[in-house]
Amino acid sequence: MMKEFPKCSSLLLKQIGPHLHITLNRPDTRNALSEEMVQELLLVLEHIEGDRGVRSIILRGAGGTFCAGGDIKRFKANVDSQPPPTGKPDPVATRNQRFGEFLSRVNQLPQVVVSVVEGAAYGGGLGLICVSDVTLCLDDCRFALSETSLGVPPAQIAPFVVQRIGLTEARRLALTGARFSGTEAGPLGLINFVCADVDSLEQRLEQVLHDVGRCAPGAVAATKQILLGSSNQPGSEVLAQAARAFATALRGPEGHEGVAAFIEKRRPAWRPDHG
Amino acid sequence: MMKEFPKCSSLLLKQIGPHLHITLNRPDTRNALSEEMVQELLLVLEHIEGDRGVRSIILRGAGGTFCAGGDIKRFKANVDSQPPPTGKPDPVATRNQRFGEFLSRVNQLPQVVVSVVEGAAYGGGLGLICVSDVTLCLDDCRFALSETSLGVPPAQIAPFVVQRIGLTEARRLALTGARFSGTEAGPLGLINFVCADVDSLEQRLEQVLHDVGRCAPGAVAATKQILLGSSNQPGSEVLAQAARAFATALRGPEGHEGVAAFIEKRRPAWRPDHG
Amino acid sequence: MMKEFPKCSSLLLKQIGPHLHITLNRPDTRNALSEEMVQELLLVLEHIEGDRGVRSIILRGAGGTFCAGGDIKRFKANVDSQPPPTGKPDPVATRNQRFGEFLSRVNQLPQVVVSVVEGAAYGGGLGLICVSDVTLCLDDCRFALSETSLGVPPAQIAPFVVQRIGLTEARRLALTGARFSGTEAGPLGLINFVCADVDSLEQRLEQVLHDVGRCAPGAVAATKQILLGSSNQPGSEVLAQAARAFATALRGPEGHEGVAAFIEKRRPAWRPDHG
Repeated sequence: MMKEFPKCSSLLLKQIGPHLHITLNRPDTRNALSEEMVQELLLVLEHIEGDRGVRSIILRGAGGTFCAGGDIKRFKANVDSQPPPTGKPDPVATRNQRFGEFLSRVNQLPQVVVSVVEGAAYGGGLGLICVSDVTLCLDDCRFALSETSLGVPPAQIAPFVVQRIGLTEARRLALTGARFSGTEAGPLGLINFVCADVDSLEQRLEQVLHDVGRCAPGAVAATKQILLGSSNQPGSEVLAQAARAFATALRGPEGHEGVAAFIEKRRPAWRPDHG
Repeated sequence: MMKEFPKCSSLLLKQIGPHLHITLNRPDTRNALSEEMVQELLLVLEHIEGDRGVRSIILRGAGGTFCAGGDIKRFKANVDSQPPPTGKPDPVATRNQRFGEFLSRVNQLPQVVVSVVEGAAYGGGLGLICVSDVTLCLDDCRFALSETSLGVPPAQIAPFVVQRIGLTEARRLALTGARFSGTEAGPLGLINFVCADVDSLEQRLEQVLHDVGRCAPGAVAATKQILLGSSNQPGSEVLAQAARAFATALRGPEGHEGVAAFIEKRRPAWRPDHG
Repeated sequence: MMKEFPKCSSLLLKQIGPHLHITLNRPDTRNALSEEMVQELLLVLEHIEGDRGVRSIILRGAGGTFCAGGDIKRFKANVDSQPPPTGKPDPVATRNQRFGEFLSRVNQLPQVVVSVVEGAAYGGGLGLICVSDVTLCLDDCRFALSETSLGVPPAQIAPFVVQRIGLTEARRLALTGARFSGTEAGPLGLINFVCADVDSLEQRLEQVLHDVGRCAPGAVAATKQILLGSSNQPGSEVLAQAARAFATALRGPEGHEGVAAFIEKRRPAWRPDHG
C-alpha cells in the first residue's frame, strides 16, 4: 500500500485500515470548493485510484458543515473578466467544465465513495453527494440548488443531480431553488441513510464500511463500471453545453445583477415586488 | 410585457404579476383535451414562450376536475374512419403524434410549469402533469392510465410517464390500468406536494410561486434546458412509433370493441368471465 | 388456446383461466436458477409468447423461497475450467451473457409478468424480480445482491437492477452487498406491493389479475413495447461487456478465493481483520 499522500493545505487525510478519510478543511469558507481544493482532491484520487488496498473514500467537512458549494469570490472575478475574442473558448466555460470533469472522475472512482454530511451542502457540495456510492446525513441538514437565485444555472451539477435523484425532483429543486432538510433528502433519493444524531451517523458509517470490507475490491470496481455503463451517464457533450450556458449566464445581465446583489446583501432586480 | 393573449373559448387566462394562470374550461366534458383546447394552449404558449416577464404558467381545471383525458367522441370518429391508401401516413397516427409533440412542447417551455390538480386526471390529463416542473394535488384526487381498458395503448403519454415516474411504476400502472389516489401519487413521484385541503393547496402554490420569483428567469430557462438534455428525453422516433401503435390498435378489433363497449356501457369482450 | 406445455422437471405449470402460474420447483436448492431451469423457462415462454389468450404469467418459488440466485456448483466448475485459446470467446462469458439474454426476454414478454416473492431472493432471483411488471412480497422477505462478496460482479443482473430501481440505490446495494428486507424493498422500488401476511398477498394478487383482465391484451402488448422503448434498456453491448467482466473476475484471484471460501465456509482473504 502506498503511504505518501500528496501534501494538501485544504484537506485532511487519514487512512484507517483500507479506508481513506478525506476531510474538506477550510471551515472559514464553510469548505467552499476552491480551485485549490478541487486540485488537491484530484491529486489524492489519482494517487489511490489504482490501489485496490484502498477500499473506500469517506468524504466529510470540517467545522460541522459539509460544503457550502462554489467560491463566490471566483464568481465575482469571472463576472468582471474580459470575454474572449470571437471564436476563442471562453475561460469561464473552460473552468466551469473542469468542475464537471472532476465530478465525473469521482463518480467513476473504482473504490466505494461514502459522503457523510453534517450541517449544509449547497451547489457543488450537493454535486459531490450526487457522485457518491453511499450517502449519510443528519436529519437537520440543509440542502439547496441555489444557483438560479444568483442568476446562473447549476450547470455542471445539474446532470449529476438528474442522474442521482431523477429529472422529476431535479427540475423542481433547480427551478425553484427550494431549500430542503435531511429528513426530506431521504425520500428524494439524495441520501441513503438519514440519521437522528451523530452517534447513529457514526454507527451507520461503521456498518457501511464493514459491508464494504465483505466485498472483493476488484469485483466492486468491475461492478461499478457495469452499473455506470447501464445508466444515463452525463457525457462530455452535456457538460460542454452546460459550461457554455454557464458562461453566457454569468457574463449576462442576470449574472452581473445576481452576484452584485449577493455581495451587497440586497434582493436582485428580478424579484417580484410582493413575495 | 405583451398583454394581448389570443382569444380562447376553452381556456380561461389570468395573469397575476409574472404568473400566468391557465384554466382548462370545458367542465361539461370534465375538461377533456379536445383538439380545439390543445390548439388554444399551443397558441398561448407560443405567445409567452419568448417573454421572460412571464415566469410561471399555472395549469388548473374548471369545475373541480383537472382533466378527464382525451376526447372519446374523437376516438369513435377515428375508429370508423377509412384507413389510408397503402404507403400513405395514417391520419389517426398523425393526429396522435401531434398530441405527443404538444406534450413535448410543454415539457420544454422555458418558464416554470406548475400543475394544480383537483378531482381527477386521466390519460392525457395525466400526461400534462408529467411534463410539469412542479405538481400539487389534493389527497383525494383520482388518477389512472385507463387507455388499455379501452383497447388502445396510452401511446403519446407513456413516454412522458416513464420520464416522470420511471419505468417500474409506469409499467405496473399502464399494464393494469390501476386507479390510484392523490395520497399514492406522492410516493410514486407523479406529484410533488399532496395537500389535505384546498387551503393548504393554495398556500403551497403561493410558496412555489414565491420561490420561482427568487430565481432569475434566464437562468431558469438555461437550467431547464440542461436538465432535459441530461435525461432520457422522449425523442420524436419514440413518439412516431407510439403513434403507429396507437393507430393499429384503434383500427383493430380491440379498438373497435373497446370504444363500442365504452359507449354502450358494457364490459368489453376481453374481460374474463369471473372477476 | 394451446394446451400442451413443454414437459418440465424443474417447474410446475398451472393455467387458471387466462393466467399461467409458473412455480420454480427445486426447493432442495432453494430454487437456484440452474441452466436446466432457465432452459425450461425459455421453452415455456416461447410456447405462450404469441398467445394473447394467456394474459399474465405469475412467477413463484416452491417451498417458501422465491429463488436463491445462481448455481454455486456451476460457479465452481467455471472457476476451474480452462481459459479459451487467445482470441476465442470465453465460454464462461458466453454462458453468463445467456442469462442476461434470458432476463431481457422475460422483460420484453408481451404478457403481464407478476412475481410473487416469499422467503428470499438473491442474485439471479432478484434479477427475475427486476424484469417483472408487477411485484409482490411479504414484509419479512430477504433480498441481496451478494455477488461481490463471492468475488464476482452481479454482471448480467446489474443492468436490470439499474433499470428497475435506478443507479442510486443499485450502486449502494451492489457495492456493499447489503441485505435488505421486504419492508425496505417497497420504498426502494423493487417491490410494488409489500404485504404483511400470506392472506393479504393472495388478495393483492387476485386484485392485480382482476385489473389485468380489464385491459385488452393486444393493447397491453403494444403499451409494454412503447414503455420499454422509452426507457434506458440494457442493450446487448452492455450485457456483452458485463459478461467479459464476469469471466475475468471469476477466473482471477478474487473469483478463486471467493468460491473457495464459500465452499469451505470461511472468510475470504479480502475481509479486513477487524469488522
